Amino acid sequence: MRFRHHVFVCENRRPDDDPRGCCAAKGSEAIRAALKDEIARRGLKKQVRANATGCLDACAHGPSIVVYPEGVWYGGVRVEDVPEIVESHLLNGVPVERLRIHELE
Amino acid sequence: MRFRHHVFVCENRRPDDDPRGCCAAKGSEAIRAALKDEIARRGLKKQVRANATGCLDACAHGPSIVVYPEGVWYGGVRVEDVPEIVESHLLNGVPVERLRIHELE
Repeated sequence: MRFRHHVFVCENRRPDDDPRGCCAAKGSEAIRAALKDEIARRGLKKQVRANATGCLDACAHGPSIVVYPEGVWYGGVRVEDVPEIVESHLLNGVPVERLRIHELE
Repeated sequence: MRFRHHVFVCENRRPDDDPRGCCAAKGSEAIRAALKDEIARRGLKKQVRANATGCLDACAHGPSIVVYPEGVWYGGVRVEDVPEIVESHLLNGVPVERLRIHELE
């Protein structure tokens, strides 16, 4: 695999009055920025990539993230969760259970 | 897996004078639109999703696409290639060999 882990962060943005909400309004852009910084800081840039995506169709769980090839989904992620995701999952291969959306896996 | 195939199409856009070029300038937005239409037309919307992403770091091969969980990479994709990708790979599970970027897999 080109990337040992390829992380996709939903950055979909809807109008403020859309009842579905959106991941961008829940802070996903800052989460991706923090992921990129932490991936670089831990020396993982060659093995791990974090990309923004459009709507992952998991709006109710946002901010939503999916990690491939393993197909692990995370929901309700906060910037403060990023170091744990990088340390546990992206560096050591152990997904962060408390953030997983098991019903999507 | 939530999606049997999750397709990520690079829609990164750089300034016109950037020597690296970008996938958006090579038509990736139209490719993703065609993918979405064809996925719907073939009744695959529940099993297959196509999302736009930021830069996949495969600029020289653009327009670039990666399909997970299998980690198949496609490069130089044209709108005319979309029906074959959907029919062969996303419907029948057989990647389109002539478009693969094997060096990234």
